[in-house]
Amino acid sequence: MRLSPLIDRLIESLQAQPGVGPKTATRTALHLLQHNRAGAQALAAALTEAAERVGRCRACRTLTETEVCAICANPRRDAAALCVVESPSDIVAIEQAGGFSGRYFVLHGRLSPIDGVGPEELGLGELPTHVRETGASEVILATNPTVEGEATAHYIKESLRGTDAQVTRIAHGVPIGGELEYIDGGTIVHALQGRRSVD
Amino acid sequence: MRLSPLIDRLIESLQAQPGVGPKTATRTALHLLQHNRAGAQALAAALTEAAERVGRCRACRTLTETEVCAICANPRRDAAALCVVESPSDIVAIEQAGGFSGRYFVLHGRLSPIDGVGPEELGLGELPTHVRETGASEVILATNPTVEGEATAHYIKESLRGTDAQVTRIAHGVPIGGELEYIDGGTIVHALQGRRSVD
Repeated sequence: MRLSPLIDRLIESLQAQPGVGPKTATRTALHLLQHNRAGAQALAAALTEAAERVGRCRACRTLTETEVCAICANPRRDAAALCVVESPSDIVAIEQAGGFSGRYFVLHGRLSPIDGVGPEELGLGELPTHVRETGASEVILATNPTVEGEATAHYIKESLRGTDAQVTRIAHGVPIGGELEYIDGGTIVHALQGRRSVD
Repeated sequence: MRLSPLIDRLIESLQAQPGVGPKTATRTALHLLQHNRAGAQALAAALTEAAERVGRCRACRTLTETEVCAICANPRRDAAALCVVESPSDIVAIEQAGGFSGRYFVLHGRLSPIDGVGPEELGLGELPTHVRETGASEVILATNPTVEGEATAHYIKESLRGTDAQVTRIAHGVPIGGELEYIDGGTIVHALQGRRSVD
């Protein structure tokens, strides 16, 4: 149903958020207007400032408004291991999992000629220089296991031939807690191909 | 994990929305910054303008930036039936269900002395006058079937004694599609008390 022009516009605008459809947007708009106008205005200010000022880290290309992001600025992060990911949210996932203390390089996408995304859009021209300058001894390819993610990983592997870094790919297989009978065939094939000797 | 100050502030601010926790907020912030800055800025503008300009309908008290809301301004809506609801989202629910062509009166809450919400905060002082002026012949109480909603309905019933309007309460019982064995006891008691002869 239509409410008022401004409320309808707010409901429409809220749907720019992933996973937010008309129903959630309507509930959110009415909630904010009824109970939390200060919150709505603080959100508006945060959106405006972030949209205007957040750029990319000079070193790893992740999203930040500072010249260098917190991870790149942290001297305790191991420069020897460089993990290449498709997007900043992949960094969040890896950091929350814990166990990786190296640095990152963010592609902001994957190779996709059909969408006009080539190596330059992903910063791949500067990657070999970056690897040499930081002295990374291992480059871990953590692009997603999709056709495009695999093609991107393959391209990066080739482009780093001129460096001394060892290039590795994260393992793909049965997720922890997963049960074989519910896993898709592609994953099972990967899990078999990636088998290791038990010691 | 912490990203950058501006992104962290955006993630925090996004959680003003109902049902949005840190995980959804992080995903939303990164999505907007990576893929839809125009959408983020349009959302900011819509939030600011709505938060500043949306007030209440002079007649029914629902949220609108116009003096009178679209339903109150619509001459085809039946002034004889006035449905009293707790919040604007209740109007949305009833309108989407269809089948009601009357008008509304929005309380923006329910009687709750412990929270300092008395009859004046709910506009109940003006309700009898409103009923007389609009010539409503029936006032349908659609407050929620909670203790406070029932108390509010009871209070309104008493306050309208001086008018000619018949006061009714919406039915409470087994929801359509619901199965008796899964319905809570309070609802079953209501359903039995509200039984009607089959004709």
